[in-house]
Amino acid sequence: MWQGEVGMRIILIGFGVVGKSVTAIIARRYSERVKDYGFNPKIVAIVDVDGAVINPRGLSAEKLETLRQKGFPISKDPEFGHPGMSALDVIESVEAEVVVEVTPVNIKNGEPAMSHITKAFKTGKHVVTTNKGPLALALPALMELAEYNNVYFRFSGTVGGGTPMLEFAKRCLAGDKILAIKGILNGTTNYILTEMAQKRVTFQEALSNAQKLGYAETDPTMDVEGFDTACKIVILANWVMNRKVTLRDVDRTGIRGVTLQELDEAAKRGNTIKLIGAIDGEGKPTVKPMEIPKTSPLCVSGVLNAVTFHTEFAGEQTLVGKGAGGVETASAVLRDLLEIRRRLASKMLS
Amino acid sequence: MWQGEVGMRIILIGFGVVGKSVTAIIARRYSERVKDYGFNPKIVAIVDVDGAVINPRGLSAEKLETLRQKGFPISKDPEFGHPGMSALDVIESVEAEVVVEVTPVNIKNGEPAMSHITKAFKTGKHVVTTNKGPLALALPALMELAEYNNVYFRFSGTVGGGTPMLEFAKRCLAGDKILAIKGILNGTTNYILTEMAQKRVTFQEALSNAQKLGYAETDPTMDVEGFDTACKIVILANWVMNRKVTLRDVDRTGIRGVTLQELDEAAKRGNTIKLIGAIDGEGKPTVKPMEIPKTSPLCVSGVLNAVTFHTEFAGEQTLVGKGAGGVETASAVLRDLLEIRRRLASKMLS
Repeated sequence: MWQGEVGMRIILIGFGVVGKSVTAIIARRYSERVKDYGFNPKIVAIVDVDGAVINPRGLSAEKLETLRQKGFPISKDPEFGHPGMSALDVIESVEAEVVVEVTPVNIKNGEPAMSHITKAFKTGKHVVTTNKGPLALALPALMELAEYNNVYFRFSGTVGGGTPMLEFAKRCLAGDKILAIKGILNGTTNYILTEMAQKRVTFQEALSNAQKLGYAETDPTMDVEGFDTACKIVILANWVMNRKVTLRDVDRTGIRGVTLQELDEAAKRGNTIKLIGAIDGEGKPTVKPMEIPKTSPLCVSGVLNAVTFHTEFAGEQTLVGKGAGGVETASAVLRDLLEIRRRLASKMLS
Repeated sequence: MWQGEVGMRIILIGFGVVGKSVTAIIARRYSERVKDYGFNPKIVAIVDVDGAVINPRGLSAEKLETLRQKGFPISKDPEFGHPGMSALDVIESVEAEVVVEVTPVNIKNGEPAMSHITKAFKTGKHVVTTNKGPLALALPALMELAEYNNVYFRFSGTVGGGTPMLEFAKRCLAGDKILAIKGILNGTTNYILTEMAQKRVTFQEALSNAQKLGYAETDPTMDVEGFDTACKIVILANWVMNRKVTLRDVDRTGIRGVTLQELDEAAKRGNTIKLIGAIDGEGKPTVKPMEIPKTSPLCVSGVLNAVTFHTEFAGEQTLVGKGAGGVETASAVLRDLLEIRRRLASKMLS
């Protein structure tokens, strides 16, 4: 190993769209990554609901490709399959530096991700997750637990998908003071409101279109009732503004009540209605439909996300990008792994 | 000094709008800065065209305030004034870690900033500048010279004013690959084109309005002929995309030729015309009026700036903010000072 190279063994939990994209990015750009960053990640285990695939020496690019193509159930793999082995068992028994947690979101109790993350912390493993559930319910406690166990906890894929909203606030605005944050943080509701305003269709029609296109789930509650936006504003509040808040602190209204008439009236004033998540230094975090000027940089259309940071010196700064997508979100995981790698390397030097 | 605190003595060259704002920010937030970042900056000298003010122990917040209020000539200061002393003399003779260069832009030969910067490098001082001139003419050579002299060279205020476009690309998109950059990088021309499109006035009328409001200079050549945008695209090309290019490599067209008829025709297609600076991995950097969709996040109005990074994995990411302003640009200087401080501190640890 050349100076500064840090080996990184990864346990990947969850093998859906994001999980598969994580393996694809790591496999495909493996050689470039080493060249650019002295970064040598190896996926030593993948766990899905049926069991695990484990190779302590690292699953090869070819093996990852095969697993991706075959898909569920992964644990039938003749070489490395462990049918029925649970994520908790794998975290406990497989040697690794980092757990990447990309299982489905659950905002009732955060499970199974909550258990995976806390188990990882307790066994001394860093965690990268794209799972908003545990963070929305218990981010202040999770950040403390990570610190207590002396491990890193990163989750840039939870807000903005591949758009680095958390890093932007934390790293690019250093030296300034962020006074407030306001954002369109959910692509599904933005698509629905854009359709309603531009094509003059009702909420129900726009929702059906979104479902047909795969932008909305069969049960659209998480999106249209504003839970997803609320999760993201909680994460921004904790990570960027040092506010100790959770999902229950958010004053939340969804978009079911937005009417064509309201959109028309807003349009007369040069405005439109968007579902806005907002937080400042003191008040309650809010999620609600709000009128914003069409000329505002925040006023993006379709499934785009946008967030505006109000800063003391540099004024308003708006970041716009796709808020979802497998490859995009996987790129956020890679970013987090590189950030952990950078911090580990500078610890080794000191 | 507590662990990690780095003293930083600063020579400030140029005491116009940006220079004054730099002293204001450092003085006003002095105590907070130390608390937040263990960062202890002291301005030990200020140089303007009439001479210098020097206090090797650091000019106090009160003294900085007095100088700001009195303004030109600064060197008459009864305590610390040195009438007629040149910037080069000060850089040579005053002990300091960093030179902050904020004199007026000159794209003919980059002077006097070019001499200030190279003198600083040769005397072992880090440089923070907001001055595009020397960078547009000789950025590849200046980066080499800084490296040769083992000093840091930072210039985030040269692109986007307070909007951290350079940092965003370099720090937030790590792990991804930037394939191309496209931006509205000049507020004056954006104001003129926005006025023409929205109020249906000619280029000349819009320019006059911009001049009345102080958005355009009496000689508007730098802005309307696209030189300012070209300087910024050169800086992005070198810093973000590792392209070794200078101002003479840019294919540049200004906005004098944009007519109301062209704007009307673009509007019929749902588009508008903006002055766009663009660079990709291989071709010539370009600056020219281009038609872009009104729904594009890049399509910002008034004096706003916006830049879109096309990345391999995370898709298109657009950053929008004010592109100029004394306090905003000074906040970029502070950001650069903190970045240098961070790098010096991690060197001390290793």
